[in-house]
Amino acid sequence: MPVNKIDLNSDVGESFGNYKLGMDEEVIPLISSANIACGFHAGDPTVMRHTIALSKANHVAPGAHPGLPDLIGFGRRKMDASLDEIKDYVTYQVGAIQAFVATQGLRLQHVKPHGALYNMAIENLEIWDVVAEVIAAVDPQLILFAMAGPWRKDLETIGAKHGIRIAYEFFGDRAYNPDGSLVSRKFPGAVIHDHKQVAEKVLKMVKEGKVACIDGTEIEISAETICVHGDNPVALDLIRNIRESLLQAGIEIAPPATFL
Amino acid sequence: MPVNKIDLNSDVGESFGNYKLGMDEEVIPLISSANIACGFHAGDPTVMRHTIALSKANHVAPGAHPGLPDLIGFGRRKMDASLDEIKDYVTYQVGAIQAFVATQGLRLQHVKPHGALYNMAIENLEIWDVVAEVIAAVDPQLILFAMAGPWRKDLETIGAKHGIRIAYEFFGDRAYNPDGSLVSRKFPGAVIHDHKQVAEKVLKMVKEGKVACIDGTEIEISAETICVHGDNPVALDLIRNIRESLLQAGIEIAPPATFL
Amino acid sequence: MPVNKIDLNSDVGESFGNYKLGMDEEVIPLISSANIACGFHAGDPTVMRHTIALSKANHVAPGAHPGLPDLIGFGRRKMDASLDEIKDYVTYQVGAIQAFVATQGLRLQHVKPHGALYNMAIENLEIWDVVAEVIAAVDPQLILFAMAGPWRKDLETIGAKHGIRIAYEFFGDRAYNPDGSLVSRKFPGAVIHDHKQVAEKVLKMVKEGKVACIDGTEIEISAETICVHGDNPVALDLIRNIRESLLQAGIEIAPPATFL
Amino acid sequence: MPVNKIDLNSDVGESFGNYKLGMDEEVIPLISSANIACGFHAGDPTVMRHTIALSKANHVAPGAHPGLPDLIGFGRRKMDASLDEIKDYVTYQVGAIQAFVATQGLRLQHVKPHGALYNMAIENLEIWDVVAEVIAAVDPQLILFAMAGPWRKDLETIGAKHGIRIAYEFFGDRAYNPDGSLVSRKFPGAVIHDHKQVAEKVLKMVKEGKVACIDGTEIEISAETICVHGDNPVALDLIRNIRESLLQAGIEIAPPATFL
Repeated sequence: MPVNKIDLNSDVGESFGNYKLGMDEEVIPLISSANIACGFHAGDPTVMRHTIALSKANHVAPGAHPGLPDLIGFGRRKMDASLDEIKDYVTYQVGAIQAFVATQGLRLQHVKPHGALYNMAIENLEIWDVVAEVIAAVDPQLILFAMAGPWRKDLETIGAKHGIRIAYEFFGDRAYNPDGSLVSRKFPGAVIHDHKQVAEKVLKMVKEGKVACIDGTEIEISAETICVHGDNPVALDLIRNIRESLLQAGIEIAPPATFL
Repeated sequence: MPVNKIDLNSDVGESFGNYKLGMDEEVIPLISSANIACGFHAGDPTVMRHTIALSKANHVAPGAHPGLPDLIGFGRRKMDASLDEIKDYVTYQVGAIQAFVATQGLRLQHVKPHGALYNMAIENLEIWDVVAEVIAAVDPQLILFAMAGPWRKDLETIGAKHGIRIAYEFFGDRAYNPDGSLVSRKFPGAVIHDHKQVAEKVLKMVKEGKVACIDGTEIEISAETICVHGDNPVALDLIRNIRESLLQAGIEIAPPATFL
Repeated sequence: MPVNKIDLNSDVGESFGNYKLGMDEEVIPLISSANIACGFHAGDPTVMRHTIALSKANHVAPGAHPGLPDLIGFGRRKMDASLDEIKDYVTYQVGAIQAFVATQGLRLQHVKPHGALYNMAIENLEIWDVVAEVIAAVDPQLILFAMAGPWRKDLETIGAKHGIRIAYEFFGDRAYNPDGSLVSRKFPGAVIHDHKQVAEKVLKMVKEGKVACIDGTEIEISAETICVHGDNPVALDLIRNIRESLLQAGIEIAPPATFL
Repeated sequence: MPVNKIDLNSDVGESFGNYKLGMDEEVIPLISSANIACGFHAGDPTVMRHTIALSKANHVAPGAHPGLPDLIGFGRRKMDASLDEIKDYVTYQVGAIQAFVATQGLRLQHVKPHGALYNMAIENLEIWDVVAEVIAAVDPQLILFAMAGPWRKDLETIGAKHGIRIAYEFFGDRAYNPDGSLVSRKFPGAVIHDHKQVAEKVLKMVKEGKVACIDGTEIEISAETICVHGDNPVALDLIRNIRESLLQAGIEIAPPATFL
């Protein structure tokens, strides 16, 4: 369903100790929701505090970005963690960031699993289920960020079961299959590099609720949040393109807690 | 001031992954407050969940036992962490355990720094101050556990400044100096091994507010919680001795949240 | 081919910091090869030093037991590490233990991948290949410990390619499929608990080069080393049974470096 | 004693996983000895392999740069590790890097403790002693890099005791006290920012064996290696200034293994 508000979310707070990663100072003013690393795959307590302060200063809604306990692999390597272990890892990380958010007088908005954990959830719905269970137990006002796709009905069932809201996520720079899933990065054309094309794709999804697939067909899709990247100047430029295109079309960029 | 209630606290939840440490199943039923490791010096997310469940089943008040980020050294080695780093480490760990406590329908009772962090705080009051600041920011109902001693007035100032409660801690198995500090373990007689003597010492402190010092003098001391250990069968036996002695004297063993 | 010498190997040195695991003092005198954890999934520098000293005192050949970087999961969870990452992890850990072995005037005998890494190698021969490549580059005298099974020809090719020796490993307490692989633990009868039966099975393999499979058929199998466990008193008792049975049959228990 | 050869050493290989730190590609071609992080305070197995390859391609001698187990603090925070723990940490890290050096057909040249460990050693000679003990046990050809200063006689005693070579280190960008120690960074003038001044200071030390102290006096000092930094473009420019100044004076820049 077309909306006149849309969220832009980005992974931030990924520095660690002496290591700086990303361009948080530049990207945070351009987004509405911040996925903040929680110390398992990236981030550390001090980085978390700074990133939340930066989000606050820019009126960006802070969210947890929990990952697998794999700092050396940046949480990008799937691992055979059990559902109970995943539940415990997510609980731990959500709690840790909640404390920092609380000390700055804010409330955590959302939870978006990171990297391999996000991809594992797409392949195994039970992982979305345990993340939803954690949210329901810790703070049912928290919004789960999950990829829009053919598994939507299942996700809606999970959301209803735990009484929590889900913000579906759209990837403007990725090609879609006709079933609503992303084209694997292994195939040519999976990633769209043309900024104008990406901005148009995002706008079409927001205004018409539709996306043109890699095979030329057009399917219906709806999402409340757009995933954007801020790790290099080109990526920042793309965010600016997307923002301009949306704002010119009268779409408001706002965190999902304000409209979901 | 003599009280008719006293708390028994012990460090628990110190297992990690495949590593089991301590006798939590035996010690938790004997105490009233559990200092639960939070994953930095010991403990892991799954262990935290289990330990809180065990505490809940035994009506023991759960507390955070934050430590330095030194798993290999069990948080027992002082390190030159800055006050800001310490504040961030404590915030992170308190938040992490709060989430687990919340998912089990409980509320965190207290915060007691672990090992080297506790000892560093005794040498540097600013550390107590940042821990108190974290408590005030995260949940002002949380009680800070701190060692009774000559620094009491300073601690009271810190507690008042941040509007938080402090439960002072007494060590029944340690000899005291006339100024109210503990005799260093370097000196003979620093640790009392006789169970009867320890139990009597605890009872005297609870009933009369007094402790006999290593030089034979007697000083006034008051505390709301007694530190006990549960890592071996002899230690468990000592806790049983202390409990029996207190209960026979009509003293109730209860978490400080119920009487402070 | 039947041999009159056989090696008994066991995983040791799995303690970490304040955490004690296993019964190394009891198991090391009973074996001939020690698979010593190297700090990634278990073990730490101090534990490594102590374990090598204990091995030396008992004339047990020290070996590296490299694992995945997953201390919280004890290296038992498969993870999507690349072949290059695995090669680097193994190189790092083998080098670390070599230094400790050298400081005690010994030479490292073997390398046996641990847990999930061992199981990943059985499913993906390229992992054996990179481990063999590390051995050839670091010290070609090192013996690779690998599971006997239907992949033997491939392993022999890998060993020849890199010019290294392989000691094939037999599991006396596990049921075998007719193809020479282990019956999965998911199936009943996969693990043999009867000590007499295990000892007889080991003896038959050593003397006759044969093993009775779960379906009643008998297949040829040969191995130079028997995997035994030492983490509990019952396991120790099993090792003693195996030793006695072998010694009574005139089989010598010796590290493979002495006969391979 | 003036020399006509001098070494330039720099800390490299400090990246970790997804985190890039330093400008190794630029700095390594400018130096003669590389202090390579070994995974405790910085670096990881893959980074170590790449850094050694880069050193090899530039004919730079590889060295171990072992640190305290404090990744989050980059090994810059002193911690109460025991001498035995330090010995074990250094052994582990030196062994790990030796394996990577060996797989590339090289030999490790030196060991220079990193950050807090280096500073702790300056305050406690017993730390130099255990590092020297490790070197003697692992490979007595390894050269220990240690700060030139008033403790030189003690270091020479330690070197002689263990039969190892020491390369003394000079800091061209730091002011010296009349006793040969560095002026603490707490005081104004401790760090020299003028590149010309630094290059002249280095040249004077190399040619005349003298350094002008902060109080205007001049003392004798001799060193075989100059510590330079390569973490930013300005620092790279300073190295180029130092190199040019040395080369113009007919001094050869070479690793100490070639002239010590």
